[in-house]
Amino acid sequence: MWGGRFAEGPHAIMEAINASIGFDRRLARQDVEGSRAHAAMLAAQGIITDTDAEAIREGLLTVLSEIDAGTFAFSAALEDIHMNVENRLRELIGPAAGRLHTARSRNDQVATDFRLWTREQCDAALDSIRRLQGALLAQAEAGADWVMPGFTHLQTAQPVTWGHHMLAYVEMLGRDASRFADARARMNESPLGAAALAGTSFPIDRDATAAALGFDRPCANSLDAVSDRDFALDFLGAASICAMHLSRLAEELVIWSSAQFRFVAMSDSFSTGSSIMPQKKNPDAAELIRAKIGRIFGAQSALLMVMKGLPLAYSKDMQEDKEQVFDAADTLMLALAAMTGMVADMNANRDAMRAAAGAGFSTATDLADWLVREAGLPFREAHHVTGSLVARAESKGCDLPDLTLEEMQAAHPLITGGVRDVLGVDNSVASRTSYGGTAPDNVRVQIARWKEYLA
Amino acid sequence: MWGGRFAEGPHAIMEAINASIGFDRRLARQDVEGSRAHAAMLAAQGIITDTDAEAIREGLLTVLSEIDAGTFAFSAALEDIHMNVENRLRELIGPAAGRLHTARSRNDQVATDFRLWTREQCDAALDSIRRLQGALLAQAEAGADWVMPGFTHLQTAQPVTWGHHMLAYVEMLGRDASRFADARARMNESPLGAAALAGTSFPIDRDATAAALGFDRPCANSLDAVSDRDFALDFLGAASICAMHLSRLAEELVIWSSAQFRFVAMSDSFSTGSSIMPQKKNPDAAELIRAKIGRIFGAQSALLMVMKGLPLAYSKDMQEDKEQVFDAADTLMLALAAMTGMVADMNANRDAMRAAAGAGFSTATDLADWLVREAGLPFREAHHVTGSLVARAESKGCDLPDLTLEEMQAAHPLITGGVRDVLGVDNSVASRTSYGGTAPDNVRVQIARWKEYLA
Amino acid sequence: MWGGRFAEGPHAIMEAINASIGFDRRLARQDVEGSRAHAAMLAAQGIITDTDAEAIREGLLTVLSEIDAGTFAFSAALEDIHMNVENRLRELIGPAAGRLHTARSRNDQVATDFRLWTREQCDAALDSIRRLQGALLAQAEAGADWVMPGFTHLQTAQPVTWGHHMLAYVEMLGRDASRFADARARMNESPLGAAALAGTSFPIDRDATAAALGFDRPCANSLDAVSDRDFALDFLGAASICAMHLSRLAEELVIWSSAQFRFVAMSDSFSTGSSIMPQKKNPDAAELIRAKIGRIFGAQSALLMVMKGLPLAYSKDMQEDKEQVFDAADTLMLALAAMTGMVADMNANRDAMRAAAGAGFSTATDLADWLVREAGLPFREAHHVTGSLVARAESKGCDLPDLTLEEMQAAHPLITGGVRDVLGVDNSVASRTSYGGTAPDNVRVQIARWKEYLA
Amino acid sequence: MWGGRFAEGPHAIMEAINASIGFDRRLARQDVEGSRAHAAMLAAQGIITDTDAEAIREGLLTVLSEIDAGTFAFSAALEDIHMNVENRLRELIGPAAGRLHTARSRNDQVATDFRLWTREQCDAALDSIRRLQGALLAQAEAGADWVMPGFTHLQTAQPVTWGHHMLAYVEMLGRDASRFADARARMNESPLGAAALAGTSFPIDRDATAAALGFDRPCANSLDAVSDRDFALDFLGAASICAMHLSRLAEELVIWSSAQFRFVAMSDSFSTGSSIMPQKKNPDAAELIRAKIGRIFGAQSALLMVMKGLPLAYSKDMQEDKEQVFDAADTLMLALAAMTGMVADMNANRDAMRAAAGAGFSTATDLADWLVREAGLPFREAHHVTGSLVARAESKGCDLPDLTLEEMQAAHPLITGGVRDVLGVDNSVASRTSYGGTAPDNVRVQIARWKEYLA
Repeated sequence: MWGGRFAEGPHAIMEAINASIGFDRRLARQDVEGSRAHAAMLAAQGIITDTDAEAIREGLLTVLSEIDAGTFAFSAALEDIHMNVENRLRELIGPAAGRLHTARSRNDQVATDFRLWTREQCDAALDSIRRLQGALLAQAEAGADWVMPGFTHLQTAQPVTWGHHMLAYVEMLGRDASRFADARARMNESPLGAAALAGTSFPIDRDATAAALGFDRPCANSLDAVSDRDFALDFLGAASICAMHLSRLAEELVIWSSAQFRFVAMSDSFSTGSSIMPQKKNPDAAELIRAKIGRIFGAQSALLMVMKGLPLAYSKDMQEDKEQVFDAADTLMLALAAMTGMVADMNANRDAMRAAAGAGFSTATDLADWLVREAGLPFREAHHVTGSLVARAESKGCDLPDLTLEEMQAAHPLITGGVRDVLGVDNSVASRTSYGGTAPDNVRVQIARWKEYLA
Repeated sequence: MWGGRFAEGPHAIMEAINASIGFDRRLARQDVEGSRAHAAMLAAQGIITDTDAEAIREGLLTVLSEIDAGTFAFSAALEDIHMNVENRLRELIGPAAGRLHTARSRNDQVATDFRLWTREQCDAALDSIRRLQGALLAQAEAGADWVMPGFTHLQTAQPVTWGHHMLAYVEMLGRDASRFADARARMNESPLGAAALAGTSFPIDRDATAAALGFDRPCANSLDAVSDRDFALDFLGAASICAMHLSRLAEELVIWSSAQFRFVAMSDSFSTGSSIMPQKKNPDAAELIRAKIGRIFGAQSALLMVMKGLPLAYSKDMQEDKEQVFDAADTLMLALAAMTGMVADMNANRDAMRAAAGAGFSTATDLADWLVREAGLPFREAHHVTGSLVARAESKGCDLPDLTLEEMQAAHPLITGGVRDVLGVDNSVASRTSYGGTAPDNVRVQIARWKEYLA
Repeated sequence: MWGGRFAEGPHAIMEAINASIGFDRRLARQDVEGSRAHAAMLAAQGIITDTDAEAIREGLLTVLSEIDAGTFAFSAALEDIHMNVENRLRELIGPAAGRLHTARSRNDQVATDFRLWTREQCDAALDSIRRLQGALLAQAEAGADWVMPGFTHLQTAQPVTWGHHMLAYVEMLGRDASRFADARARMNESPLGAAALAGTSFPIDRDATAAALGFDRPCANSLDAVSDRDFALDFLGAASICAMHLSRLAEELVIWSSAQFRFVAMSDSFSTGSSIMPQKKNPDAAELIRAKIGRIFGAQSALLMVMKGLPLAYSKDMQEDKEQVFDAADTLMLALAAMTGMVADMNANRDAMRAAAGAGFSTATDLADWLVREAGLPFREAHHVTGSLVARAESKGCDLPDLTLEEMQAAHPLITGGVRDVLGVDNSVASRTSYGGTAPDNVRVQIARWKEYLA
Repeated sequence: MWGGRFAEGPHAIMEAINASIGFDRRLARQDVEGSRAHAAMLAAQGIITDTDAEAIREGLLTVLSEIDAGTFAFSAALEDIHMNVENRLRELIGPAAGRLHTARSRNDQVATDFRLWTREQCDAALDSIRRLQGALLAQAEAGADWVMPGFTHLQTAQPVTWGHHMLAYVEMLGRDASRFADARARMNESPLGAAALAGTSFPIDRDATAAALGFDRPCANSLDAVSDRDFALDFLGAASICAMHLSRLAEELVIWSSAQFRFVAMSDSFSTGSSIMPQKKNPDAAELIRAKIGRIFGAQSALLMVMKGLPLAYSKDMQEDKEQVFDAADTLMLALAAMTGMVADMNANRDAMRAAAGAGFSTATDLADWLVREAGLPFREAHHVTGSLVARAESKGCDLPDLTLEEMQAAHPLITGGVRDVLGVDNSVASRTSYGGTAPDNVRVQIARWKEYLA
């Protein structure tokens, strides 16, 4: 009846769908930390003896060292990391192990372990983001005044500086970091002591275990403490948006690496070659990073779908939380590291960017702004005059600065020779000194601000 | 060639896909506010005259009043709300209207308008959440000591109190509120003055416009300011998680309203009846709220997909941002209002809940805890002894308190008559006094804390 | 207590969340068709009189004509299109209207109407896809032998033909069409007569109503007929994949429209310009099409989330089905029409494509294949020899055909002058005559096949 | 600079993000099959010698046997399964191995392997679905006339039969099967011979390799053949909808297993117990199945997001396809197997269902229908009369059959004693003989039809 991979029947199926030890072993360290804090608190409150607590706490360290050493024999029959650890503890220290689970349950235990794990990933994300910001700042610093086309619709719009473009991502990543920081702060409450769902009648000290585990405070409602996984969704949401930002930079790197753009050359380390075309460098790492948003968003979608419509308190559905967060966290850290490496190694082609920046009448806006500022035209009229000059230049096959003053004055009599000061890409970028604008001096101020912030 | 609805050809198709006035008219007020702040700043900086600024600012109020009055003639040919407003302004005040757009662009204008709109929705969400928390607190207060089954896997696990269960949702909603507050704080930077993408050469004062519009500061990078929509994703992410919480409560209300549970009766206002079965009350509102997570998550999915892999700076793809946020915001506010109404109106059936709470040996854990606490058994052994007593009670067809002391002592000799103090659902809930536990006294403390917080 | 938009209280909230007439009025025609078929069957089975049936059927036509004429007064108090129509029917024909609902319920009625609507959209999608295939075939025919770079990783890999590239999308769209055809076939069963959920005791003829409405057969299980919305998910799934294909072509059009590529020029009809840079053509329509996948996938996500975990039979959650499908269908048809227009109007730049195709040693593979074919080298060795020749050409700053025969023979002695026959982009594409390969003759065969198929 | 897990620097990061051998080793068998077919064709076409082909084909079998035996040494440096296999082949048979890759590329090779794998999963899904249909049919057959409540809004609406309810899922699964069959048919075209992207100049026979691998035909466009992954999305889409259906049945099983419903008892094999409450059976397997839709939909979301906006032809982004499909396929097969086991083992509680079916005036519709049929009332009037009788019964605290004939006639004078024939749940279900209705005779006909179909 069962066929194929489940020929052994119900037992094999149930173990396959139910056991979590295949993945939740990643919580081993958190499980031991949580149990050690719990045991210490039980002793301090007189619920178990100091002797038992000491045996438990030492035994747990032994268990963890076995796991770290790879000598621990995980058992699927024991279902999860919690029972695997406790069972081994019993082998090591005997019946005292049975006192560890006093005044707690697997429900608050797993919620605690998983929060600790996710909290660490927030810290890891913060760290990885800072590294990438550092790499971007190094690029920005090297090319604070390198001119490149600023695109809208992938059409040249106005010149900007390489440094300014790099800083745009530093800003995005700064908000990404703040999302992880917010998520971390919100999740930093201890479920431990919520027990199965209703709290306990033992005189436990939840503030003590919360403090021992670095939580800001205990969760205020036991039902909520064991039932929600919004903290995991917070992590996944922050990761999705960060991955979205990475996908945009990755897309730019792929486009910029094309023979048609040649704005950047990726290093060999982050490209793959072709044995037949040795000059070819495929931006594989950039493409893979671009793709990773799918994986992370997939994890977020999955967990939100799982949580939809679940009645309180714990349901087994919630066991689907961990693999999604594990995979998304691994993926994000890898994508951030790979992007950091690519950005650190890549060479921007200053000449190619500069040549492209000047094409397409990219300083037409500067001309229009001059007409407003110096000739007093309303913006919309200045816009119109500029359009006629661009049309004339295009029909002549020349650029704006190549028009004669007479030609310009034919379009509007108030134009003077001074207009040439704002044409040309260097003039253009240098003039954009409004706060947040692309002027190299602005860029350097922002770099300095970020370097100080990240120091 | 075009067929069907686009028989008019390219023009009709392009207008249908490109024009946004059909939806972005909802930004009219924000557009006018932003423009008024911009005009005032331009005058203060000497970029336009005070006279022009005054005409612009007054004219914009007139435009807004026409829109509010429903007398404004929107034009799809003018594409969006920004051009519709400016065009009408020109009709009202003449060429001076052409000076308004000095030192800005549609790119920073739309980013500003949409942030203002989304920021308001954060405030609306915060307000709506508080109302729902208030309704839940009222239920909690009325039934702080009403006993109901606490479920895991929808199986009776341990008794809890109605107040405690209501408070679980108050906690979740508290975190939801903090998400909107975080999103609001993060998005509260002004894009205005970023211009098309590179900043401007006009001597604008971005701090002034930021302050006038209630922003904390101007965005620090002009490319980033016009290119990102992570603030909208923050809103949608917070809304999705909040909708997930609502879906859980809605699911509980549907189940609790069933003839089999009868834990709650929804009011007529939020049910629909059947003319053929007048006693029937379908919990339509609860079902619709349960479904709304789909719609809100759909909006989040949509916008993240849109943003994936877009090169900087503005691309027209980003025009897809607004309808998703509009719909998600409307949906969330409606769902919160409907849930508030349902919770305020519903009647909890104290007797039915109490009867259910006592079934299924729900105080077995209390017995086990007593064995640990009073008889000194290790938890795992106490668990085992309790299991044998439950099995005996089940085979006798009675409940745990109905066993004789002799029967209990046959399971373990250290059991005394004192054990009866912990059996029974009232004893059970009263005993769970650990912080966050379900004891009525705890519940009342939490209610007081929340009422003070929300006051 | 209610605040803001729901100040009127519960009644206003419930109407806002519960009434569907705001959107399900789009089902008016389907509702009338379904009811007319039902009435005819009731009379044929002797369940109602012919006189009543005739009055009902004529009255329904009157109702529909009022709706089409825009003179129908929709009422939110009557909740949905079904009650609006029936109520108006009663006004028109009196009590006989009350016999129409015999042996059916709103549950099978709405399922029938919505299937009819979705089925029509499958047909519309099939039609729109064929139009786009036609436009692509016209491009393919014009440029069956125009050479362009074939990219992998957006790096030039091997030359292909424009016709071949266009045909790739014709193939994708062919599969998209087959998805809609499959979905249509699967959904084409009639729910009518399933009644509320259990069938009916009236002697109805479900085959007759199924046939009258163009269904292949009646649904075989009444619970299933009113409970599932997988047919809508089928439509949305097909639409998502089709939108994915469109997003890829749109991305290519955006990249190809850049100043750096210049492979295509979009027509004015599907671009937007800049009044300041008249030469600028922003590929807005392409960007908007690229974005539409988000919206369609959002609808699919939404409905799947809604359906997750709903117990049988009808739940009000399912009312969320229609707006998602309406919006996705409108979006898809618009995107297909816009893409058809863009493709029909765009100008491929044959020279720019050809120049790009020859760069980057794109015929290195042809050289390697020659070494295998003519000199008998194993593929991997031929690959290696070619790599050394490319390296030499690159160091000399020349292309492969510019190497002397001696230089070539230094790399491998079996190379003869005949090798020149395979170098050069025209030779390259002409040689790829394997079935499905890019050779112009192949391309023309495929064009002919598709034209015949679509004729 | 790299920190943490990537302390080794760029090399370690690139290997981590780029190498696919960690997961694509699951394609080993398909890779060997594809290569064997390719080698045979090359020899048949005279492109390589028969001797070489034989050596290659035998060598590949050896490689596969090593992989099956677990003795194969996979190398991450060789990146993927294709290079691992070819490299080992070279060790085994020498330079002839280098001829295998003639006239193909990794791009068509991986597309072929992955299609073969996915095609097998379609078959596996079809098989698993049939098993589940079989288990449901067995339940339906045992309880073809067992009466249970038919719910709308989880409120009792009308009585149905257990068999009918089981058959509703048989129907849904039948459509699920047709989705996998459609997907299989659509994907069953061979990419092999598309080479890198442009086809090849070797005189290959793509029909031959297609036939050897069980494909219906070769793909007609080489660019399309290597660039699309819509076949994987088809599989994931079918899996998501199937998982949605499973989530609904799982939800029902969870609700039906509650103490309040007690409609079914799950077997010990698919429940988990509590050592403290031995009578407790948590429906863990049902909950896990309910959750699996999240995981499968997450995979679908991920891959669609990956594919959005990718230019042709192959991009490395597409490497993200396999893990999603692998995980979704494993998850679906496990969920189907677990559901099959649960359904096969579960015990429906006939008495509890029957008792619930009769409550709530569930035969009111039957009374209304009698009034239409026997007394000639219009449906809407009959509905109204019935409502008044239900109200009277409710106020008397009795059921409909307990009303006296006088009481009934007071509501409407045309009511006769014959009305009693339609009251009562057995009468009700027996009367619903319309095609697809819940009458036991109907149910048995449908069971017979399905058994024949599945035989």
